[in-house]
Amino acid sequence: MNERAAASPRATNEMPRVGDPQDACGDTLQQRYQRIRARSAQLAAPLSAEDCCVQSMPDASPVKWHLAHTTWFFETFALEAFDSGFKPWHGAYRVLFNSYYNSIGDKHPRPQRGMLTRPSLAEIKDYRVHVDGRVLALLRHRGDDSQLRQMLMLGLNHEQQHQELLLTDVKHLLWQNPLHPAYRAGDAPGRSSHAPLEWIACSGGLVQIGHSGEGFAFDNELPRHSIFLQPYLLASRLVTNGEYMRFIDAGGYRRPQCWSAEGWDWVVREKLTNPIYWFADGDHWQEFGLHGLTRLDPDLPVVHVSYYEADAYARWADARLPTEAEWEHAAASVTLEGNFADNGWLHPSAAPASGLSQMFGDAWEWTQSSYAPYPRFRPAAGAVGEYNAKFMLNQYVLRGGSCATPAGHVRRSYRNFFPTGARWQFSGIRLARDS
Amino acid sequence: MNERAAASPRATNEMPRVGDPQDACGDTLQQRYQRIRARSAQLAAPLSAEDCCVQSMPDASPVKWHLAHTTWFFETFALEAFDSGFKPWHGAYRVLFNSYYNSIGDKHPRPQRGMLTRPSLAEIKDYRVHVDGRVLALLRHRGDDSQLRQMLMLGLNHEQQHQELLLTDVKHLLWQNPLHPAYRAGDAPGRSSHAPLEWIACSGGLVQIGHSGEGFAFDNELPRHSIFLQPYLLASRLVTNGEYMRFIDAGGYRRPQCWSAEGWDWVVREKLTNPIYWFADGDHWQEFGLHGLTRLDPDLPVVHVSYYEADAYARWADARLPTEAEWEHAAASVTLEGNFADNGWLHPSAAPASGLSQMFGDAWEWTQSSYAPYPRFRPAAGAVGEYNAKFMLNQYVLRGGSCATPAGHVRRSYRNFFPTGARWQFSGIRLARDS
Amino acid sequence: MNERAAASPRATNEMPRVGDPQDACGDTLQQRYQRIRARSAQLAAPLSAEDCCVQSMPDASPVKWHLAHTTWFFETFALEAFDSGFKPWHGAYRVLFNSYYNSIGDKHPRPQRGMLTRPSLAEIKDYRVHVDGRVLALLRHRGDDSQLRQMLMLGLNHEQQHQELLLTDVKHLLWQNPLHPAYRAGDAPGRSSHAPLEWIACSGGLVQIGHSGEGFAFDNELPRHSIFLQPYLLASRLVTNGEYMRFIDAGGYRRPQCWSAEGWDWVVREKLTNPIYWFADGDHWQEFGLHGLTRLDPDLPVVHVSYYEADAYARWADARLPTEAEWEHAAASVTLEGNFADNGWLHPSAAPASGLSQMFGDAWEWTQSSYAPYPRFRPAAGAVGEYNAKFMLNQYVLRGGSCATPAGHVRRSYRNFFPTGARWQFSGIRLARDS
Amino acid sequence: MNERAAASPRATNEMPRVGDPQDACGDTLQQRYQRIRARSAQLAAPLSAEDCCVQSMPDASPVKWHLAHTTWFFETFALEAFDSGFKPWHGAYRVLFNSYYNSIGDKHPRPQRGMLTRPSLAEIKDYRVHVDGRVLALLRHRGDDSQLRQMLMLGLNHEQQHQELLLTDVKHLLWQNPLHPAYRAGDAPGRSSHAPLEWIACSGGLVQIGHSGEGFAFDNELPRHSIFLQPYLLASRLVTNGEYMRFIDAGGYRRPQCWSAEGWDWVVREKLTNPIYWFADGDHWQEFGLHGLTRLDPDLPVVHVSYYEADAYARWADARLPTEAEWEHAAASVTLEGNFADNGWLHPSAAPASGLSQMFGDAWEWTQSSYAPYPRFRPAAGAVGEYNAKFMLNQYVLRGGSCATPAGHVRRSYRNFFPTGARWQFSGIRLARDS
Repeated sequence: MNERAAASPRATNEMPRVGDPQDACGDTLQQRYQRIRARSAQLAAPLSAEDCCVQSMPDASPVKWHLAHTTWFFETFALEAFDSGFKPWHGAYRVLFNSYYNSIGDKHPRPQRGMLTRPSLAEIKDYRVHVDGRVLALLRHRGDDSQLRQMLMLGLNHEQQHQELLLTDVKHLLWQNPLHPAYRAGDAPGRSSHAPLEWIACSGGLVQIGHSGEGFAFDNELPRHSIFLQPYLLASRLVTNGEYMRFIDAGGYRRPQCWSAEGWDWVVREKLTNPIYWFADGDHWQEFGLHGLTRLDPDLPVVHVSYYEADAYARWADARLPTEAEWEHAAASVTLEGNFADNGWLHPSAAPASGLSQMFGDAWEWTQSSYAPYPRFRPAAGAVGEYNAKFMLNQYVLRGGSCATPAGHVRRSYRNFFPTGARWQFSGIRLARDS
Repeated sequence: MNERAAASPRATNEMPRVGDPQDACGDTLQQRYQRIRARSAQLAAPLSAEDCCVQSMPDASPVKWHLAHTTWFFETFALEAFDSGFKPWHGAYRVLFNSYYNSIGDKHPRPQRGMLTRPSLAEIKDYRVHVDGRVLALLRHRGDDSQLRQMLMLGLNHEQQHQELLLTDVKHLLWQNPLHPAYRAGDAPGRSSHAPLEWIACSGGLVQIGHSGEGFAFDNELPRHSIFLQPYLLASRLVTNGEYMRFIDAGGYRRPQCWSAEGWDWVVREKLTNPIYWFADGDHWQEFGLHGLTRLDPDLPVVHVSYYEADAYARWADARLPTEAEWEHAAASVTLEGNFADNGWLHPSAAPASGLSQMFGDAWEWTQSSYAPYPRFRPAAGAVGEYNAKFMLNQYVLRGGSCATPAGHVRRSYRNFFPTGARWQFSGIRLARDS
Repeated sequence: MNERAAASPRATNEMPRVGDPQDACGDTLQQRYQRIRARSAQLAAPLSAEDCCVQSMPDASPVKWHLAHTTWFFETFALEAFDSGFKPWHGAYRVLFNSYYNSIGDKHPRPQRGMLTRPSLAEIKDYRVHVDGRVLALLRHRGDDSQLRQMLMLGLNHEQQHQELLLTDVKHLLWQNPLHPAYRAGDAPGRSSHAPLEWIACSGGLVQIGHSGEGFAFDNELPRHSIFLQPYLLASRLVTNGEYMRFIDAGGYRRPQCWSAEGWDWVVREKLTNPIYWFADGDHWQEFGLHGLTRLDPDLPVVHVSYYEADAYARWADARLPTEAEWEHAAASVTLEGNFADNGWLHPSAAPASGLSQMFGDAWEWTQSSYAPYPRFRPAAGAVGEYNAKFMLNQYVLRGGSCATPAGHVRRSYRNFFPTGARWQFSGIRLARDS
Repeated sequence: MNERAAASPRATNEMPRVGDPQDACGDTLQQRYQRIRARSAQLAAPLSAEDCCVQSMPDASPVKWHLAHTTWFFETFALEAFDSGFKPWHGAYRVLFNSYYNSIGDKHPRPQRGMLTRPSLAEIKDYRVHVDGRVLALLRHRGDDSQLRQMLMLGLNHEQQHQELLLTDVKHLLWQNPLHPAYRAGDAPGRSSHAPLEWIACSGGLVQIGHSGEGFAFDNELPRHSIFLQPYLLASRLVTNGEYMRFIDAGGYRRPQCWSAEGWDWVVREKLTNPIYWFADGDHWQEFGLHGLTRLDPDLPVVHVSYYEADAYARWADARLPTEAEWEHAAASVTLEGNFADNGWLHPSAAPASGLSQMFGDAWEWTQSSYAPYPRFRPAAGAVGEYNAKFMLNQYVLRGGSCATPAGHVRRSYRNFFPTGARWQFSGIRLARDS
């Protein structure tokens, strides 16, 4: 995800066709715009101006920056491009809130985003109100311009990506506070229970992956293409905390045999003994989450593991990670529903008792696939072509969305990607095996 | 300064005798307590909660942390020690706001101070109000306890040190913001003018330095002792921006001959070409200050130079830095007044036309003296013994106070100290020569 | 390559079957052993004991270490495993010359290999003589043991990998010497000439890649499997220095648009403007090579470029890098011959006038394929299973061998691999395009 | 020492007057030149070309580099300056073997000295023979030129400094080798015995320190000047290994209270638990020395401690380090003899039974004095003025010479200096106390 988003070009670099006048949610583009933009503000509501200002590490951004950058996106790619009366809201914002678009010009250095105590949170909220007004006016007057509609769709999908990053970044920030404050109070939705692991047999052969159909997709999901798969087995659910604890108890973090060479160097260098948000507390574990510090529930999926850890766990369990094609092929027959961010509980849930489950929501699933362009991939035209293509290197693909992903955002063909050491996303493990 | 402060023990590790019932300012200890504590809040008043939360570098602290730590100091060393009914205001603060007192116990890591978005600024203000109430009540009931009075004097001097750090730290933070916001609006107090440099002849011989008399002093100013000096010449005023520009124009930052070996390595490694808060703007310089970005005034003292730069400038000017004994000996005959922080203008002023001037206020003056214990120095007893003694290594002494120092805080014997690379303090240059 | 080598297991983890009694070169295993082992000594012959001792960077190893480690490999995996009268030649060598085999036990830290002035080069030569004698005696007595024969074949292929590393490592060492000493004197074999670039059309479909047949292969080349390819175009020859100079002249190292995001960060951080062994000399370039410093020949292939540079060049040239499957599929019809290390000239040569050329030898060709296990890959059994499998992460595959690779070492299915920033190998660029 | 040496200028920057025709050793300058130059070759004799080539850390230099640089010194400052027929022996050596003299021009980067496998050790030996021949011829023809004689005296003292560095650098190199090779075989000269610690009372007052008389001195020992001392107590001997073990056993490396703030950060960051060359071996200690690995003798002086460690030990022992003036004042009455490098045993010896002992030889003694210019100090004129003056910053003075110092090299006024973290010199601890 990584703040990247781009139009989905076909051979002619067209923008994706949006299913107007109403999409699957049944709302118009105006309604969708208002709904998604409002949700960002709602996510920031439990936080103080101080919470929204601080950057906890170079990979994370302040909440205020997310609120400003997503607005900058609409100002730059919609208003500046389509609004004949465009004037920038503030002369400095073009640079301050550019993330990485070299085609747009200079940008404020990423590790310095947390230095921006000015503009204030209140000023950024004003900025949002202003841009929203201009965008909605533009939609009223030029709502039949398909280029504009497609750019707005892109901006909304981009904003949803930042909604997830906002949550994972603030989780990382609050975790560093010795007071362990909760982002949101509340109790877990019912007691979890243990679902046995089953191995689901999947046939191989020449299959198709990649986005198809009329709806929105990012350019990295295209073009749909053929790939040859051997038959394989896929685990019915995510690896649980309880299973991962057995890996730890078996010396998982002390035995190089479980790890890739680079992963083992990482464990030794960082002196790691457990997932990032776990705290040893006597003879049991506590886990820090957006709902505060709680006793680790062995029946819930393990989350916030890096690729290194997912890969090591799989090796220890005499299994492997699936490829992204295996994952997508298996997902074709699964209903696109799950534990997403909209249900009020920002943590994974336990798997149901049987069948292929948790493919969507709960936790992003590491695949063994390095993030690479699909055959005949063409980046989107213009500045938005920088969103995905330039990151296809030394990162690995994750699939399926998480409990922090907005409902309706992911697709079966959706490709998230992070470097092998990233742990602050809701990333989990689904095992695979050769059949 | 560096957040260090300690009682001034004599041979018996007594605390310094406070000149009660009224000091030079004419106010009682209660009044002084209220006045100095209120000033900290006033210094934070122009700042938002966001401004007060962010840490701009490991050497600097957030404003909120300064406000909390100085309060922690009174809570820990006055209330906990002298108030029989003491209860901590918050169980976690003892660790969160401990700076470096190993005798007190654990401390929150210094580079992580900026992660503390909680407790909020409002909560810290409540903490201040609570502790102030308890301290004043204690003074009412036990105001005749000289140990308590001395500890409160120490705490107030400690708070004044943090008032200066608060200003230099927030200056460093705002400087990193591309918007260059001013801490405080306002125009410079009148046009500066050029004062010619004179060399003041000082006699040597066996002289005395170190604190004497009844008033408060830190332990590092004691004991007063004899030292033998050769005759020397001292510059009548600080080096100006205009003089420093000539050093730059003469290739000062490109010629290793001007620098110590370590200083030159520093220039090359950091790729330096000018003092920290200067911005090249076409063919002239701008300077960032607490009053915003303005054109560099050649008649004002150069500030924010490191020891390396002060030493290089002196070598280029065929002079040297004074020793701290030379400085103190010359200062003995100078009235203790100058451009301090209380006059509303937080920047150095130009020197008057003639005579030994600017010895106090305007800018801390680097000396060539490594910070070391005076002969027969004894650290204060107890935890406060950690304040000064353990820093007497690889730092250099600065003298005289600056435009950010509270009036009434410094003495002729006052020893400030920083590492050779520090630039974010109001540090300037006074030259000396052998006569 | 990276000092990794492993047996080629099939489903049952068997060792590869060696084509006894005589291989393609027509010599017996004894003869091959003596020939390959002697070649290592010959490669070190132009070097002094000093040249053989120094480590120029953590990624490189001293020549002496290569000579010792390859011997350790035979001592550990052949003598210790198969020789009933085995006694270690020196008690400390098991640790000193273990590269990365955790199953064997402790190892001397890689960045410290250059500290080993003892044992001396002469002692390592004695070690080689001793182990060679024992291995040849073992072959005489147990030459019909196929397990032993396969392990020796593995050791010889391993030694050939280190012969190439020895050359690239010593090139890196000599390059750092301001005297620019040549590894070997000599003139280039005739004047190069310009071959125009052609695009070779390759059909796609469901093709097979991976090792087949009876000969030796590493485990990472197995199993042979199906993969679906779209039709594509492959450049007829490697990119030349002249072409790469045009990339530089067009601002290649100054324009982020040409680069992946990570590649651009690398260029900025390392302040790069050209390939590693180039020296600007007035208005032309010099190139450092194993034959010393010479004027850069525009008709020769560009070498010593990283993946980042190869990828950026391809983007600038409106092309892309081939996948490893595309490369291997095209290589199926090409005769396995080229400019290898045995011809006495350790530098790439110019391409012939037409046709698909330079597929083997000259320069390793970066592919866009992340190094990953083939479907149903199984690492070799035992300690040798550590050689390849644990490196399948964040590295990219190179194909075809180079002018520093021993003739007869590479295969069409051979997979070399290095991290994206590696530049000290003879790595070059072959372009591809969608057709 | 640090490879710095300079003429001792008086007010007029004269060179020091050399006590010709014969010095205290009774030999002529010719004889002295030959004797000292031959000793460098003798020190390298037990080492292989490999041993002489490798650089074990940036602070250390290869033995070959020492041999070349000291020769470069004579070639550059004597032959080039005084020999009308001068031609450089090799065009590249002027840069390769320049240590830090910016006035001479470019220099090979210090951390890259170990990359110089060429020129070979044999070539450097030829270089030495050549320069020696030219220097002796020059002495024959212009031996009455006092400027030349003084420069040669400087070069010989410089060479003696490098003789000590050669030994400490090679010790550091061999220590890193798991084989723990000895530089020189041999048994300790007799069993050591325990000398009780006495406190020697020294009177204070206005005393003189700095070089006096006609003999050679470096510029940093001048001018002789007055300083006022309080009465003090000086330990009769160096701190022993046994005493230091009690510090360790008392938790010295685990208790921040013993350390300066910077020292404690150093201990934590480097994870230190003991002096650098100690190895824990079951329930006792081994010590690595130039004579190999032996059981730590509790009666010998502790050596290879940093300033941080010396300071921490002193604090723990309720004492302090002496100032350099205290040391020199006490040394005035001590005969200049001790355990120096010429006696064949390159390790400290135990103290004799009583009286102020070990002031010279055995171990350099850390003082609490930051290395600073003496009052009215003037660097030597010309390039040699770079030797000492530019290092007077963030280093501390050591006094008295060590078991690796050539006999006859040190003086009572001799000032060695190293940064506070340096441990690879033969540095030890003598305690002082206020009386």
